[in-house]
Amino acid sequence: MINVGIVGATGYTGVELLRLLLGHPQVALKVITSRSEAGKPVADLFPNLRGHLDLAFSEPDVDSLATCDVVFFATPHGVAQSQVPDLLARGVRVIDLSADFRIRDIAIWEKWYGQPHGSPELVADAVYGLPEVNREAIRGARLIACPGCYPTSVQLGFLPLLEKGLVDPHDLIANAASGATGAGRQAKVDNLFTEVSDNFKAYGVGGHRHLPEIEQGLADIAGRDVKVTFVPHLLPINRGIHSTLYATLLDSSVDLQALYEERFANEPFVDVMPAGSLPQVRSVRGSNMCRISVFRPQGRDKVVILVAEDNLVKGASGQGVQSMNILFDLPETLGLDSPALLP
Amino acid sequence: MINVGIVGATGYTGVELLRLLLGHPQVALKVITSRSEAGKPVADLFPNLRGHLDLAFSEPDVDSLATCDVVFFATPHGVAQSQVPDLLARGVRVIDLSADFRIRDIAIWEKWYGQPHGSPELVADAVYGLPEVNREAIRGARLIACPGCYPTSVQLGFLPLLEKGLVDPHDLIANAASGATGAGRQAKVDNLFTEVSDNFKAYGVGGHRHLPEIEQGLADIAGRDVKVTFVPHLLPINRGIHSTLYATLLDSSVDLQALYEERFANEPFVDVMPAGSLPQVRSVRGSNMCRISVFRPQGRDKVVILVAEDNLVKGASGQGVQSMNILFDLPETLGLDSPALLP
Amino acid sequence: MINVGIVGATGYTGVELLRLLLGHPQVALKVITSRSEAGKPVADLFPNLRGHLDLAFSEPDVDSLATCDVVFFATPHGVAQSQVPDLLARGVRVIDLSADFRIRDIAIWEKWYGQPHGSPELVADAVYGLPEVNREAIRGARLIACPGCYPTSVQLGFLPLLEKGLVDPHDLIANAASGATGAGRQAKVDNLFTEVSDNFKAYGVGGHRHLPEIEQGLADIAGRDVKVTFVPHLLPINRGIHSTLYATLLDSSVDLQALYEERFANEPFVDVMPAGSLPQVRSVRGSNMCRISVFRPQGRDKVVILVAEDNLVKGASGQGVQSMNILFDLPETLGLDSPALLP
Amino acid sequence: MINVGIVGATGYTGVELLRLLLGHPQVALKVITSRSEAGKPVADLFPNLRGHLDLAFSEPDVDSLATCDVVFFATPHGVAQSQVPDLLARGVRVIDLSADFRIRDIAIWEKWYGQPHGSPELVADAVYGLPEVNREAIRGARLIACPGCYPTSVQLGFLPLLEKGLVDPHDLIANAASGATGAGRQAKVDNLFTEVSDNFKAYGVGGHRHLPEIEQGLADIAGRDVKVTFVPHLLPINRGIHSTLYATLLDSSVDLQALYEERFANEPFVDVMPAGSLPQVRSVRGSNMCRISVFRPQGRDKVVILVAEDNLVKGASGQGVQSMNILFDLPETLGLDSPALLP
Repeated sequence: MINVGIVGATGYTGVELLRLLLGHPQVALKVITSRSEAGKPVADLFPNLRGHLDLAFSEPDVDSLATCDVVFFATPHGVAQSQVPDLLARGVRVIDLSADFRIRDIAIWEKWYGQPHGSPELVADAVYGLPEVNREAIRGARLIACPGCYPTSVQLGFLPLLEKGLVDPHDLIANAASGATGAGRQAKVDNLFTEVSDNFKAYGVGGHRHLPEIEQGLADIAGRDVKVTFVPHLLPINRGIHSTLYATLLDSSVDLQALYEERFANEPFVDVMPAGSLPQVRSVRGSNMCRISVFRPQGRDKVVILVAEDNLVKGASGQGVQSMNILFDLPETLGLDSPALLP
Repeated sequence: MINVGIVGATGYTGVELLRLLLGHPQVALKVITSRSEAGKPVADLFPNLRGHLDLAFSEPDVDSLATCDVVFFATPHGVAQSQVPDLLARGVRVIDLSADFRIRDIAIWEKWYGQPHGSPELVADAVYGLPEVNREAIRGARLIACPGCYPTSVQLGFLPLLEKGLVDPHDLIANAASGATGAGRQAKVDNLFTEVSDNFKAYGVGGHRHLPEIEQGLADIAGRDVKVTFVPHLLPINRGIHSTLYATLLDSSVDLQALYEERFANEPFVDVMPAGSLPQVRSVRGSNMCRISVFRPQGRDKVVILVAEDNLVKGASGQGVQSMNILFDLPETLGLDSPALLP
Repeated sequence: MINVGIVGATGYTGVELLRLLLGHPQVALKVITSRSEAGKPVADLFPNLRGHLDLAFSEPDVDSLATCDVVFFATPHGVAQSQVPDLLARGVRVIDLSADFRIRDIAIWEKWYGQPHGSPELVADAVYGLPEVNREAIRGARLIACPGCYPTSVQLGFLPLLEKGLVDPHDLIANAASGATGAGRQAKVDNLFTEVSDNFKAYGVGGHRHLPEIEQGLADIAGRDVKVTFVPHLLPINRGIHSTLYATLLDSSVDLQALYEERFANEPFVDVMPAGSLPQVRSVRGSNMCRISVFRPQGRDKVVILVAEDNLVKGASGQGVQSMNILFDLPETLGLDSPALLP
Repeated sequence: MINVGIVGATGYTGVELLRLLLGHPQVALKVITSRSEAGKPVADLFPNLRGHLDLAFSEPDVDSLATCDVVFFATPHGVAQSQVPDLLARGVRVIDLSADFRIRDIAIWEKWYGQPHGSPELVADAVYGLPEVNREAIRGARLIACPGCYPTSVQLGFLPLLEKGLVDPHDLIANAASGATGAGRQAKVDNLFTEVSDNFKAYGVGGHRHLPEIEQGLADIAGRDVKVTFVPHLLPINRGIHSTLYATLLDSSVDLQALYEERFANEPFVDVMPAGSLPQVRSVRGSNMCRISVFRPQGRDKVVILVAEDNLVKGASGQGVQSMNILFDLPETLGLDSPALLP
């Protein structure tokens, strides 16, 4: 059994991580810390866990976390940076679901997140936890930076094309839409039911924090610089990200369907759908699966890639558990093989 | 392993049954029949099952179903009646999720369902599959009639009070609300997104088919005749039933909280919430749990009971699997112990 | 033209009042005050008003409000109490959408609202603004206390029965459900999209502030004391209240349909639906109409009344405008005769 | 008063047209025809109209329609083609909300709509009813082809850029999302609440009927051929279209904000939002307003235009009424000046 601790877990990523770990046959949940909720039974905050979990939130404490084999951070950015060094020093592995260690260029991180980085010396050690790209590096990591929700879908969608240099890397468009859990569990007027329901809008058009992460990841894949126009939108649903990606083909002879099927043939959590099919976000609700379709409308030179994932699972906690499985040499799908809840 | 067949399974009860059985460690899915969809892979109809299930729907066929240990019917009423006798004759146990064998009085069944009953001789053999009331009978059954979704919540809610004769049995009110999956997967204008969303209404006020089932079940519990005013409503959500029950106390000295906690102390799928708590339907989404709270507003003589369940799980397929576990002497919670998906 | 001022208007009742008054042919909007938003154009807060309204919020100021013929309060409880006396003293009429002057018994008000009443001497002067009951009193009022959203629907629903003494006044049940705008525009976790959507629950079961208002109004109608069990629920929609009312008939010979049709025959905003019809909340979205149906299920002695209204219109701002029309001797439907927005 | 007839009106475009015309001070509704619903009061089909409209649907009949000054067609494609010639011959003006007369090239129409065109000789006479482009031609028209919902938003969004030749006309991307009313009021499984809610997906990626209309309109504006990649998506809301448009700037010195503000300065139904603002579909619900924002993310050469409209109003019935106002020399905003319903 793997002894697991969680720092944070008072948000939606946290409750989803708990749900997944409770169903994982090789995990023993040991410690769940929260400064604001210390002393409260976790199931009081998340009523779906009543009867499934007896733990209460405890004060953050390195000694108790250090008894774990691995600690997940399900915290806002800035928190992991300050606590990770102590844990690593005591031999605990860390899987960070926040943005703290995703960006290699410290200056870029500091510009987009608006604060000094707390552990710049650790950034180079962090492995970007996208198994479809970095599986081998994850295996030996001590600190894993889980990708953001949007970046996961955008990178998986463009991956086969950029790896092979088949599209113009300076003309990439990522038009994405996310469920409201992506905005977290903060009490803000903008996130009220009465503001989000019956509505749809873009946001962050001038610049979203996931843009530098997306461009870093795609540049790694392409082996050269890329330019992405990224426009996120807010959906009146709880879970799900749908990315509609556009690129300009440099080589119009490529068999796109075959390219995608072959690239992801051995990936347990990427489902390339049959030609002409349309991925729906509800088909991955609660599941770690990412479904992808690829089109070339009117036979013109634009390729359109559709990507659906659950932002809380493949876009966050599920991907973290997938990395944990790799890290501890378990079957990669362990605890992650339930079908989505539909409808 | 238990070899399982399913008749029907093209509706929402069906896809939920498949999801639960796929996660059940002692089940082997052998046959899924559907006259209308024969030949089509099941995962083509329900995209959440892609990668989890290779079976295709087959034509209804007694010989192939007879190779199973148990056959579930997830069909509209009227279908099981015609096919069950052959299966029972060949030693197959049957768990019927439809209304065909729920009502013991054939005349009442025929009146409410508007057609002659196809197997009246089997009705007396059928065990009403509400484990909290009929666990021992289920253990030895060959034909289980799973309760309706509303009747499950109303019976569990009134159970402790009626068993003890604490309320007026002629003054029971069941005000209930269900998600839209309760109306099935039929192409009707009334069920369109554009008709159901942003809306709320009562229906079936003059008489709903679950009324005679509710009254039969409550009369069994009370050991005398009962009268229920039952008003169902349609919620603009997919899953979940919330019943708000009202009764007039005959004895105002009873400790309601203790009564409920004691009655359900050993029930794995009934959660009596702490005094003052409010059950939410989202806290049971995808789960077989039924959560109950009991109130006595202003200390007057009316008791108010709140009951939340997932209509597709504890209200249908999950309850069927629970009965299957009892029938085959498995741990009652096997395959049913995942927390709800929240949010 | 009537010169109108508004105090508050930063919530949903406020924006709905603005929408209605902008479409009212006899209204000139003069002043809209808000301490928190002073200086900000109103249309910056409510984007639907862009191009329709040039006013900015101003600091609360008696002198400018005193230039108005009538001032609406769209404020939390407690605010109107402190500002109304000055306005009345300067001859301005006041229509208060808050709870400050609804309850005649000061002690009861103070108990339920948890604070001392700021203008107890004015309470006796306030007219309870339910036109279907108090039309003549409204005509001559200087201070109108608009009914709460739930109390409007519950009182209209029970009105014909209690006026005639046809039901047991000690056995009334009001099971109601409201859209999320009823909880206001406050930044609370409980009101987030991610908490309210895909969900349904009761709340305030032990005691809701609308209970004493309901019981006071129904007692006035019945001419004797009444007892109501009131259970509100939260719907995952923005607008709409649906009340399902239960009462025990004392006289089973009454023609309920005729009773309701006759009582409301001349009421422009109460629509008694044809026998067997079901009112839907979407059929009144954005409209001041209240739709009612009456049933007697199974011919037993329980009567079931269904009532649908828009909580922001007939349940708040529209009813206030209706009272304003009465007060200024205008046609009662002026500015209120648009059909609901459907779907 | 203008005497108005409507053919069809059993769908959502129809009920919205009725709502708008009932509030129009210069309109008398004379005839509403429907073959399938003849004899039924219109308010029985659309409960929001109870008390507002006494008309019943009548059988389609040229003589009665010919008594009108103008007849709207709110029918599926193919119907207007067969009935319009008779009405025009009798001097009645026609405003067609369907697709029958939108495409000038008959072969293209027949290819995308899969049937022969019934009145090819009238196509050249039809005026494309987009007032922001064709106001003068609408004024003298006898047959107006109202634009489709998506084409309205896409054309208004690209208009200022293409008129001035500022972007590459062969690299236009229109990523759009529509509420479910866009799919009509047809009883199809795909349109059920249980299929659309909690979901988001693209559709028609390989080719949507609005593509040729969009390309025709944009080519007219640009004065040359254009190529558009158009990907529509289905939103789990009732009303609203949001288009996110992408183009490549040829001239990076242009002041985009000023360009848009100047182009639409005199347009009553196009609202260019302040720089940095984000149009929300709820801000136009029930309104004829179209709100537009323009961005140039990261100062690169891609321009992003955001457009929000109500698909049933500016995208259909409201735009038809706007054209009617122009046609009959009424103020263009008559009957169309209500603010949107929010929330």
